[in-house]
Amino acid sequence: MYEGAVQELIDEFGRLPGIGPKSAQRIAFHILEADREDMNRLADAIRVVKDKVKFCSICFNVTEQETCSICRDPKRDETVLCVVEESKDVMAVERTRSFRGRYHVLGGSINPIGGVGPDQLHIRELLGRLNDEKIQEIIIATDPNLEGEATATYLGRLLSTIGIRVTRLASGLPVGGDLEYADEVTLGRAFEGRRTLNS
Amino acid sequence: MYEGAVQELIDEFGRLPGIGPKSAQRIAFHILEADREDMNRLADAIRVVKDKVKFCSICFNVTEQETCSICRDPKRDETVLCVVEESKDVMAVERTRSFRGRYHVLGGSINPIGGVGPDQLHIRELLGRLNDEKIQEIIIATDPNLEGEATATYLGRLLSTIGIRVTRLASGLPVGGDLEYADEVTLGRAFEGRRTLNS
Repeated sequence: MYEGAVQELIDEFGRLPGIGPKSAQRIAFHILEADREDMNRLADAIRVVKDKVKFCSICFNVTEQETCSICRDPKRDETVLCVVEESKDVMAVERTRSFRGRYHVLGGSINPIGGVGPDQLHIRELLGRLNDEKIQEIIIATDPNLEGEATATYLGRLLSTIGIRVTRLASGLPVGGDLEYADEVTLGRAFEGRRTLNS
Repeated sequence: MYEGAVQELIDEFGRLPGIGPKSAQRIAFHILEADREDMNRLADAIRVVKDKVKFCSICFNVTEQETCSICRDPKRDETVLCVVEESKDVMAVERTRSFRGRYHVLGGSINPIGGVGPDQLHIRELLGRLNDEKIQEIIIATDPNLEGEATATYLGRLLSTIGIRVTRLASGLPVGGDLEYADEVTLGRAFEGRRTLNS
């Protein structure tokens, strides 16, 4: 629709996740009118991230060095490993400030329809770490959806024979939520996972 | 939260319109995992648009040349001028395929709270065109919101003495809409602008 460079920019932005044609157009016109310096910084940030950022050779979290800041930190508990799908999930767990162990990023979840099987995930590397490191508990923190549950079940079975405690994050009612608005599956899980109050 | 380059990319994307922190994070991780070639194309598109794209010296539409493709087109009707707020609006009108005249892009709308007065818009240049070109009708196609209406009223008064016909796009019910769901202002406008069917 537009002339050359503007349309190209709209097309490039339209390919990013969560950006529809209208948003892409809005962003392109913002860029057109924005300060040149600011926009060069944006363009550079894209290039720099592709050049500098790698995945940690131990846990596959994002890093600019050989290993990530968590794997390098000697104060983190080496006996507990939290298995997550993505680097984003590492950050989500870190924000809770309630976990002081280390991580293993699978790089996704088992999704037969999307063509992702266990071989496409960093599961072999996880098994390698269990041999080398003194891990006593593995907390499986994959997403509470179909693929995440399938991945958790797969890992649970795979790890059942190695003599390490394997746990899964609790499912239940979100804190601050309203029981009335909880979906049936969540409410069902909350019942299954109910805790005794009068010990 | 993240290490250097990743956080920088998230920050840069978070500054774009319509992209919140969660979307910015999602896009940054998409870029991390995407093909390097594709991401270089995105970075280049941002730079190229800042380098190549200018505003038409006649109508202020976006262009890569001195004047835009519409101003250069000898087949466009030189006697009718459609005044819009933004280049995006030019495209919106073009998509209707019902206007064959030329445009004038104001570069915004009058918004006293946002600090945009008539002097910040390309109104002086519009008056210049009325002297130089053989324009017989000016269609004011600013947005049907507070700022757009204020701009239309301002232009209507400014142009009332020059002996050129000045019109405003009709307000009314959107085609395909439902009368029941129309807001009162729109429905009121539809009444005001009602047409006689039995001539």
